[in-house]
Amino acid sequence: MADKRPRIVIVGAGFGGLKAAQLLAGTQAEITIVDRENFHLFQPLLYQVSTSELAENEIACPIRAFFRKNHNVEFLMAQAQGFAPERRVLLTNHGEVPYDYLILAAGATTNFFGLQSVEKHAYGMKTLQEAIAIRNHVLHMFERANKCADEAERRRMLTFVCVGGGPTGIESAGALSELVYGVMSQEFHKLDFAEVSVKLFEAMDKVLTMMPPPLQAEAIRVLSGERCVDVRLNTQVMDYDGADLKLKDGSVIPTRTVIWAAGVKAVPLLAKLGTAVDRSGRVVVGPTLQIQEYPEIFALGDCASFVQDGRPLATIAPVATQQAAVCAANIKKLLCGDTQLLSFRYKDVGSMATICRGHAVVAMGSWQMKGFFAWVAWMVVHLMRLAGVYTNITVALKWFWNLVSGIRLGRIITNIKEK
Amino acid sequence: MADKRPRIVIVGAGFGGLKAAQLLAGTQAEITIVDRENFHLFQPLLYQVSTSELAENEIACPIRAFFRKNHNVEFLMAQAQGFAPERRVLLTNHGEVPYDYLILAAGATTNFFGLQSVEKHAYGMKTLQEAIAIRNHVLHMFERANKCADEAERRRMLTFVCVGGGPTGIESAGALSELVYGVMSQEFHKLDFAEVSVKLFEAMDKVLTMMPPPLQAEAIRVLSGERCVDVRLNTQVMDYDGADLKLKDGSVIPTRTVIWAAGVKAVPLLAKLGTAVDRSGRVVVGPTLQIQEYPEIFALGDCASFVQDGRPLATIAPVATQQAAVCAANIKKLLCGDTQLLSFRYKDVGSMATICRGHAVVAMGSWQMKGFFAWVAWMVVHLMRLAGVYTNITVALKWFWNLVSGIRLGRIITNIKEK
Repeated sequence: MADKRPRIVIVGAGFGGLKAAQLLAGTQAEITIVDRENFHLFQPLLYQVSTSELAENEIACPIRAFFRKNHNVEFLMAQAQGFAPERRVLLTNHGEVPYDYLILAAGATTNFFGLQSVEKHAYGMKTLQEAIAIRNHVLHMFERANKCADEAERRRMLTFVCVGGGPTGIESAGALSELVYGVMSQEFHKLDFAEVSVKLFEAMDKVLTMMPPPLQAEAIRVLSGERCVDVRLNTQVMDYDGADLKLKDGSVIPTRTVIWAAGVKAVPLLAKLGTAVDRSGRVVVGPTLQIQEYPEIFALGDCASFVQDGRPLATIAPVATQQAAVCAANIKKLLCGDTQLLSFRYKDVGSMATICRGHAVVAMGSWQMKGFFAWVAWMVVHLMRLAGVYTNITVALKWFWNLVSGIRLGRIITNIKEK
Repeated sequence: MADKRPRIVIVGAGFGGLKAAQLLAGTQAEITIVDRENFHLFQPLLYQVSTSELAENEIACPIRAFFRKNHNVEFLMAQAQGFAPERRVLLTNHGEVPYDYLILAAGATTNFFGLQSVEKHAYGMKTLQEAIAIRNHVLHMFERANKCADEAERRRMLTFVCVGGGPTGIESAGALSELVYGVMSQEFHKLDFAEVSVKLFEAMDKVLTMMPPPLQAEAIRVLSGERCVDVRLNTQVMDYDGADLKLKDGSVIPTRTVIWAAGVKAVPLLAKLGTAVDRSGRVVVGPTLQIQEYPEIFALGDCASFVQDGRPLATIAPVATQQAAVCAANIKKLLCGDTQLLSFRYKDVGSMATICRGHAVVAMGSWQMKGFFAWVAWMVVHLMRLAGVYTNITVALKWFWNLVSGIRLGRIITNIKEK
């Protein structure tokens, strides 16, 4: 009898995968979550780990902890590697996982746009390990610069470049600037902070493309003004060897730190299904979020190519969680033999980005907000969405502490890996 | 004029080195702290990091943060490698550091007693990196066992051995047992926890040798009773290849995890001074904590061989901090031209060890305490000694949360390195 229970396999425990699993946990199905990490990551705050503002455990939560009481939910720590859809089997580095329904919620990966030298020497900003590596590296650059007698090399170590004018690039540049001028400057008594610079490069002529122009301008104004970030639009990166960053206009920026937040693309796994994918490698899904050839396979979030009103949906958390709800509802219907499935339609909840302490931009439809109260709104929304009461409390406490003390206790170098 | 200021160099920012620096920070001297890490580590709680109870940033604090307002205190992130005492120079991997006074406070390192196979395959428990590696490894063993169909290999992955009956071994075994039976058992729905075992091996016929016999017996009673730890005395480890642990009696324990807390020895640096060292490699110091041949060099804590009442002092934090106070006072006297230096005498503050949640043992002179109130006393003492108000608050909060929720949020695998 137990063997007859339908098997639902979910690839990825990001916002979408986790939500789908939680919504399906109450059914009689056997649910297996497959993820290469054992934790759910709150990606919007990843840049705060890379800049020592939060600790890794404050934005990562063990996947199993969400399903303590759901004995029908299993977790498999494995890398999904392919499919045998005719047999309804997911292939992983730990064997085959059979399914009756499969949800693809594996998220996205960094898009280096084919720049291999950049991929090798720059830091991505998608995984917790990358954020920890950036933190270690940035802190270490200061310690190394402090010991370095050669001015040119010292300036190279103290030049920090973020590439990409999306929320991650903006937030990283703002938080780095705060770390440098607000915290490190208090403790490196002998360094000349005129030698330090934080730069933000964007290939297009604007930043935060999902925001209305006045908020785009606000982000640039705050960053390049009080935050002392060197913001350069229409600036395209061509090559990086770990020491010199070459731009399209021929200029060269000596730097040991390039944080690459210029774009994402679908995980390579999706192409192995052999069905239609869009330009970013996302799987084309129908209105019910099913893949046409395999109606037992659903895709959502950054894995799904879903066009609404003629435009593909953005790769943001609300899209993933709203799609997860429809996915879960549709699978529940199918489990009951109901074939009248729901069609997905994204309800815009607006978008927000923080620039730095005390400054954020928020846009919801035609309504806009910027400055301090937008920042407070940003904090409240992010605190509420963090998983778990304990994390809510400690992150609030830590933000408050960082604000009043300016110390940032997380600045410990746990592993020095030179890139 | 600035060049004439006396230079005090302190090797190591553990309990002793940090305390000495703090006490000397108010003088006119130029103080340089040399440490290979950028943080001060609260070692007594290291086992809580390896068992996911606390996060690394909760027991580590950036060294520079202690000296924000002391512009005469510099930090050099470097590995001390030797001495040129005739020139009064410390040699490091980042060049020479000249001194007028030198304090050796570099702590101790794990003693594998010449067992090379153990050194290669077992985990030490002295550094933050080791504790993080143990945490990652233990959590990963559960994930791997959960995917493993072979019972013998699964049992090998689920057998956790701590070696050494001192406080670190006892505390590690107790905390591991809590992690396994209190936390993991709630979330690994398909594992048979009868296959899991936590073992504690001690070569001598007793544990916690600094404690009176009734408290030694209490530790064994609690661990082997309610904590289900397999405690074995008179059990000596001979060899370990990462899969099988061989004991002196010829028996073999299949295990993928050996945590080595069997002893410490002085750091190899000390031998390079060429002066007298004791059996553990600690530098012999006079009553004023100076080295006879080089009265401008002081040693303290785990670096100093100091015999009191016919016995060498224990390698514990109170010895280091009390010695730091005398060191600092003597250097201040020398700075003023006063050659009537203080002699050191250790004031016994007692000793305490926690066994597991709700159980600790405390001995002060002839006074003993055990059980719940000893545990509360242990918590209060450790909370008070943690650096910084913020850490005090969050660690208290986290302990409380761990107690009531039993979830342990820190269980994230950040880096899988197979040993």
